[in-house]
Amino acid sequence: MNRPLSIAIAGLGTVGNGVLRLLRDNADIVAARAGRSLAVTAVSARTRARERGIALSGLRWFDDPTALVTDPAVDVIVEVIGGAEGVARTLVESALAAGKPVVTANKALLAVHGAELALLAERGGAALGFEAAVAGGLPIIKTLREGLAGNRIERVSGILNGTCNYILSMMRQEGREFADVLAEAQRLGYAETDPSFDIDGIDAAHKLAILAALAFGRPVAFADVYVEGIRRLSALDIHYAGELGYRIKLLGIAQRSDGGIVARVHPCMVPGTAPLARVDGVTNAIVAEGDFVGRVVLEGPGAGAGPTASAVVADLIDLARGHLTPVWGAAAAELSPDASVPMQLHSGCYYLRLMVVDRPGVIADVTAVLRDFGVSLESMLQHGRAPGEAVAVVLVTHETGEAAVRTALARIASLEAVLEEPTLIRIEPG
Amino acid sequence: MNRPLSIAIAGLGTVGNGVLRLLRDNADIVAARAGRSLAVTAVSARTRARERGIALSGLRWFDDPTALVTDPAVDVIVEVIGGAEGVARTLVESALAAGKPVVTANKALLAVHGAELALLAERGGAALGFEAAVAGGLPIIKTLREGLAGNRIERVSGILNGTCNYILSMMRQEGREFADVLAEAQRLGYAETDPSFDIDGIDAAHKLAILAALAFGRPVAFADVYVEGIRRLSALDIHYAGELGYRIKLLGIAQRSDGGIVARVHPCMVPGTAPLARVDGVTNAIVAEGDFVGRVVLEGPGAGAGPTASAVVADLIDLARGHLTPVWGAAAAELSPDASVPMQLHSGCYYLRLMVVDRPGVIADVTAVLRDFGVSLESMLQHGRAPGEAVAVVLVTHETGEAAVRTALARIASLEAVLEEPTLIRIEPG
Repeated sequence: MNRPLSIAIAGLGTVGNGVLRLLRDNADIVAARAGRSLAVTAVSARTRARERGIALSGLRWFDDPTALVTDPAVDVIVEVIGGAEGVARTLVESALAAGKPVVTANKALLAVHGAELALLAERGGAALGFEAAVAGGLPIIKTLREGLAGNRIERVSGILNGTCNYILSMMRQEGREFADVLAEAQRLGYAETDPSFDIDGIDAAHKLAILAALAFGRPVAFADVYVEGIRRLSALDIHYAGELGYRIKLLGIAQRSDGGIVARVHPCMVPGTAPLARVDGVTNAIVAEGDFVGRVVLEGPGAGAGPTASAVVADLIDLARGHLTPVWGAAAAELSPDASVPMQLHSGCYYLRLMVVDRPGVIADVTAVLRDFGVSLESMLQHGRAPGEAVAVVLVTHETGEAAVRTALARIASLEAVLEEPTLIRIEPG
Repeated sequence: MNRPLSIAIAGLGTVGNGVLRLLRDNADIVAARAGRSLAVTAVSARTRARERGIALSGLRWFDDPTALVTDPAVDVIVEVIGGAEGVARTLVESALAAGKPVVTANKALLAVHGAELALLAERGGAALGFEAAVAGGLPIIKTLREGLAGNRIERVSGILNGTCNYILSMMRQEGREFADVLAEAQRLGYAETDPSFDIDGIDAAHKLAILAALAFGRPVAFADVYVEGIRRLSALDIHYAGELGYRIKLLGIAQRSDGGIVARVHPCMVPGTAPLARVDGVTNAIVAEGDFVGRVVLEGPGAGAGPTASAVVADLIDLARGHLTPVWGAAAAELSPDASVPMQLHSGCYYLRLMVVDRPGVIADVTAVLRDFGVSLESMLQHGRAPGEAVAVVLVTHETGEAAVRTALARIASLEAVLEEPTLIRIEPG
C-alpha cells in the first residue's frame, strides 16, 4: 500500500467534525477503497478551545488556514469554512494556484467563483472536489460528470433545499401558514435564525447553478439563475394545488431551450404522481434527463454531518486514487458556449390566483386582459360565492410565454375589483 | 487533446448498436468529457450481412473476437456478446490476461466468474468496467464503488429485473393471473420466448451478487445467493397484499447479518409507502443504506439500448481519462473476508396463505404447529365462510427464523385439512 494521504481540515463545524469522525470510524474501509490510508494531520478553526466531542490531539493546529497551502506535509485541503468570500475563497484560490488539491462543501463559493476556480485548478493541475456542495450525500456531481457523461442532458430538476421542502410539506400536511411553520422549523433547528438564504431560494440557486454547469458542460453562471423563494406561498394556494391534483415544491430547474439554457428556482406545481411530488420533509431529490439514458432519479438526505462527510470522503478517495476530473466535466477550452436564456423567454403553464370582489363583470374584465396578451386558459374556477365581498378565482393557462403572463398579470392587478397582489405559480412536469 | 481511444466492439446486438449510435451522435460531448476522441475502429459479430441500421464502413471486421486481444491498434474491447461461458468468457479472460482493458455489459459473466476476472485484471493492470451489467443506465456501480465509498453499507436492495416488475405491476393493476400477463408480456416483447432467466430470478440474482460484492467490498459470490422467482405468485396473494397495505415486488436484497452477509432474491411484500413499492413497470430502483450517508435511492430505466449504451460509454470515458478502480472496489488483498450466511439463518416477518377446509378445529391445528416451532403471529384472517369447502387463511408472523417458519409450514402442508401447497412471502421494509 502507498503512503498515507495527508489531509488538512479547515473549519471544524458540523461538516468538519463529521469528516473527522468518518475517517476515524471507517478508516479500514476507506483505506481499502482508496488504496492507501487517509490521515488527517492538520486542522484549522477559529477557536481552539471549543468542545467538539472528538479528539484533536496529535493533529497540527493552524490558526491561519492559508498557512496550510505552503505546508509541504499537507497533500490536500478540505475547506469546510463556508461562504463565497473571505477566508474560504482566499484559501481555495491560493491552494489551487499553488497546485494543491482542494475538497470543499462550499456551494456558494463554487456557484459564484467556480468558473475562475476551474481555470486556477486547470492551470495548477490540482483537483477541486465539491461532491458535498450539492444535495449532501447524493452523488449527483459524480452522476452528472461521470455516470451520465455520454449523454446530452436535456433537463435537470430537483428539490435542492431541505428547509423549504420541510416547510412546504408541513404546510400541506397540516394546512398551516408559512410564517407559523417557519417559526416552528426555527425552534426545531431545521431553519436558521436568519432563514432568508434558504427560503428566498438563494441556497437552491447556488446548487442549481452548479448542476446546470455540469449537466450542460459550460462554465457556472450563478448570476443568470432566476430566483424566487417561498415566502409568499399561502395555505390557500397549497390547498387549491391539492384540489387540482398538484403539489407545490420549490424546484431548481435547468433545461435546454431555443438559444440556450434557462436556469430557475421558484415554487412549482407538479402533478401528485411525479417522482418529485412524493418527496417530503428534508429529503433532496434530483431528476436528470439524458438523450440516451432517459430519466434518472436520485433521492436521499440532502444535508447533515453524516451525508456531507460521506460526500467529502468520496472526493478524498478519488483524489487518493489519482483520479482527476475537470471541474465542470471538461477542460475550459472544451466547455460549451451555450448562452443563458433569460426567464422572460421561458414558456410554460401557469396557475394564477386572484382575490376579486364577487360582482358581475369582474371575470369578463380579467379574461379580456388575458386574451389581449394572448394567454389562453385551460380552466377557471371561482371558489365560493360572497356577493360584494372577496372571493378567490383560480386560473390555469395553457402553455404561454413568461413575459406575456407577467405583463397580463400586472394589468389584472391594477383592476379596481382585484383586491390583493395576484399569485403566480408555474406548473411543471416534475 | 490526446490521441483518440481506439475501441473494438465485440457483439452487434441491441447494446452494441446502441454504443455505436451514442458514440456517433454524441461524439463532441463524449470527446470533451473524456479529454480525447472515442473512436470505434473495429467490430466483431457472428454475421456480417445483417441489416443493423448503422454504417459499419470504415471499421475493421473481425470474424473471431479473440483476435482483437492481440491487435495493437485496439486500446479497449467492449464485450457485448453476453453469457457466462463461451466466447464472451474467453474474450474477456484473454484480454485482461494480456493487460487490455475491457468494458462489458455481461452480468452473468461478472456474477459467475467475477472473482477470477478481478484477479486477472489486477495482475494485468487492466481496467474492467461493468457499469452496464446492473440496472442499465443507473450509475449504481459507480455510486457504490465511488460515490458512497466512505460508508459501511448495511443493506442494498432493489428492483433489478424489469420483466418481473412489469408482470407484477400488471397483475396488481388489472387483477390478472401470472400466466396470462406473462403471455402478453411475451407478445409485447417485454419477456423472452424462454422467460425462465427473468421470472425464476436468475437475472436479478446475477445483478444482486454484483451489488453485494461492491457494497460489502468482498469477492462476488453468486452461488451463495438464495433465489426464488415469481412463477408461483397468484392474483389472490397480490389482492391480499393490497388489503394489508403491501405491494408484492421481486427484490434482490443483501444485508449484514450476524456472522456475515445474506444475499437473496425472492418476492417480497413491502409497505405501500416504501420507495420501492411505488416503482411500477420496467423501471429499476435500488436503495443503498450507509452508516454515514443514510438511505440513497436511484431510480430509472434498467434496460434497453439507450440506457445500456449510456453506461458502457461512461466506463469508456473513465478509461479514456485514465481512471482505474479495482473491480470490487478494493485490491484483492484488501477485500473483506465477510462470510455468506445461508438463507436458513435469515429472520424476518412472513405472510403465509393456506387453503383449508372450512370446519371447526382447523385453525387450532394450524396455530398449534406454529406455536410448537416458536412462530408467533401478528394477525390471522380467514377470508370468507364456506362450511366444508376451501377457504383462504392468511397469517402474518412476527419476526421469526426462516428455518422455523419453513419447517412449520411443511408440517402444516401435511395436515389433512390443508388443501394445496401453502404460500410463503417474506415481508420487508422495502
